[in-house]
Amino acid sequence: MSALPLRSRTLRGSVASIGEEALIRRIRAWLGAASPPPPAGIGDDCAVLRPARGRELLTVDPVVHGIHFDGRITPRAAGAKLLKRNLSDIAAMGGRPRAAVVAIALDGRVSTRWLAQFYRGLAEESLRRKVPIVGGDVTRLPGSFVATLALTGEAAGRVLTRTGSRIGDWIYLTGSVGRSLPTGHHHRFEPRLAEGAWLARRGEVRAMIDVSDGLAKDLAALTPRGAAPAIHAARLPRRGGASVREALCDGEDYELAFTVAAGARRSALEAAWRRAFPRTRLSCIGRFTRVGAVPADALPLGGFRGYEHLR
Amino acid sequence: MSALPLRSRTLRGSVASIGEEALIRRIRAWLGAASPPPPAGIGDDCAVLRPARGRELLTVDPVVHGIHFDGRITPRAAGAKLLKRNLSDIAAMGGRPRAAVVAIALDGRVSTRWLAQFYRGLAEESLRRKVPIVGGDVTRLPGSFVATLALTGEAAGRVLTRTGSRIGDWIYLTGSVGRSLPTGHHHRFEPRLAEGAWLARRGEVRAMIDVSDGLAKDLAALTPRGAAPAIHAARLPRRGGASVREALCDGEDYELAFTVAAGARRSALEAAWRRAFPRTRLSCIGRFTRVGAVPADALPLGGFRGYEHLR
Repeated sequence: MSALPLRSRTLRGSVASIGEEALIRRIRAWLGAASPPPPAGIGDDCAVLRPARGRELLTVDPVVHGIHFDGRITPRAAGAKLLKRNLSDIAAMGGRPRAAVVAIALDGRVSTRWLAQFYRGLAEESLRRKVPIVGGDVTRLPGSFVATLALTGEAAGRVLTRTGSRIGDWIYLTGSVGRSLPTGHHHRFEPRLAEGAWLARRGEVRAMIDVSDGLAKDLAALTPRGAAPAIHAARLPRRGGASVREALCDGEDYELAFTVAAGARRSALEAAWRRAFPRTRLSCIGRFTRVGAVPADALPLGGFRGYEHLR
Repeated sequence: MSALPLRSRTLRGSVASIGEEALIRRIRAWLGAASPPPPAGIGDDCAVLRPARGRELLTVDPVVHGIHFDGRITPRAAGAKLLKRNLSDIAAMGGRPRAAVVAIALDGRVSTRWLAQFYRGLAEESLRRKVPIVGGDVTRLPGSFVATLALTGEAAGRVLTRTGSRIGDWIYLTGSVGRSLPTGHHHRFEPRLAEGAWLARRGEVRAMIDVSDGLAKDLAALTPRGAAPAIHAARLPRRGGASVREALCDGEDYELAFTVAAGARRSALEAAWRRAFPRTRLSCIGRFTRVGAVPADALPLGGFRGYEHLR
């Protein structure tokens, strides 16, 4: 892991050398068209938005230097990742993103050039997804860099939650899992917004989750009481030569796992998916069985742990 | 400044010793009634909320250990301060708070007992203000503690922004300013929510701001083009024996500064204020004049700087 790019705080080129007010002006310039003028954007005590249509969604996720990214990826990719992590959470409810606020806490010695690239990456993703950055905060944090983004969204129709699956339901997964870090997927992924919204309109889909802490851990959150997921290793779509353990535990997949009613016409769902998303892989990886009735050839998921952030 | 209360990460009582999943369960227990069950609260990919009535407000502010608080105040007070800082921003637009999400980044050696008190303080303030904590995130941050709260609000009627003041307008201030840190005001303050909402309904009030970075700096944001604030030292409501410089520059006052149309019936406004808020001091501290026409006995505000977070 490489260290933060720090400069002497008294030297030109550090954020401390320009001070907070000038830095905020620069951040607005770096964000450019991604940051609307106040009161709809940065520059007042709060941003003022039109209310959500349907139900409102709200989520928050950070990127921390040394944890979610480091010098092995560009600051531009890290800025984009900050927004994309949160977009993935909106996707998992079948929602549409609306607007974001971003609070950064950073060492005064961080180089403005590095920070400019971080915000430019965030701005590019913001414009691509039409999610304006409407507010934020800048504060001092000796020795570290933490950027926290809160994102609001809306769901005009059904909101897909993690609950509602039943014994017998089929378990599906978009894309593939495992080896997110070595393959660069952890920052190159595309949040499954279109797929999530499409799935929320399909009545046979019962529940959905964003796979970000490792499939083994995240599947547990979809599993109804009294049930266990029976997943077959051969059906696991593994990324970049991942082992079964890597596919189940690595984390940062940002794929959608969802369940389909036992009696649904799966072939119709799968055919409709292929028409709507010809380039997004969809795999049926197993189904929920009663606890104690998991077939002998299914993966013993209890033996796999997902990513634990504090260990 | 005292250090973070760290324990060995392998010892009982550190957050690392219990791991992320168990920590999130504990956080929900600490928050108690302040945290509704999912999908309205913690436990899904996003929180699901009813949409805002009128316009939606959105803001974000952190507390960083060593910057916004340290061992001189209790973790309970720090947790309450995190929400109150954000409530003050909603107050400054005349809005009502709705729901909050909280992302913490912390060293794995932080004691769970300390963290429990932090969340209990947050929960108490959340219940007092009827602002549920609906989501969050926990991540690792070696050597530090950063808690970032994003808050949504709503404004059914008029939204008071920082813009709209004119030359000749009167400048008002709630409460008093200066010496927020030594007096403990920086964490004991009461966000001016009722006052802000009341002021938004008064047509003669033109613009408003939350005084948090020092009055001198924050008044600049209210000042219309071509104008300058003419503030009289004798009219400045100073807290706890603050000097004029402290009153203008200290920051963390969390009071409201607002402007009143030049031709308004000020005595009627002030009488109505006294009936509505008999215990909240209100001061007319000056007015906007043309640049170059500031009276000789007014404070030379250009010589005072507010709090600069990155210096």
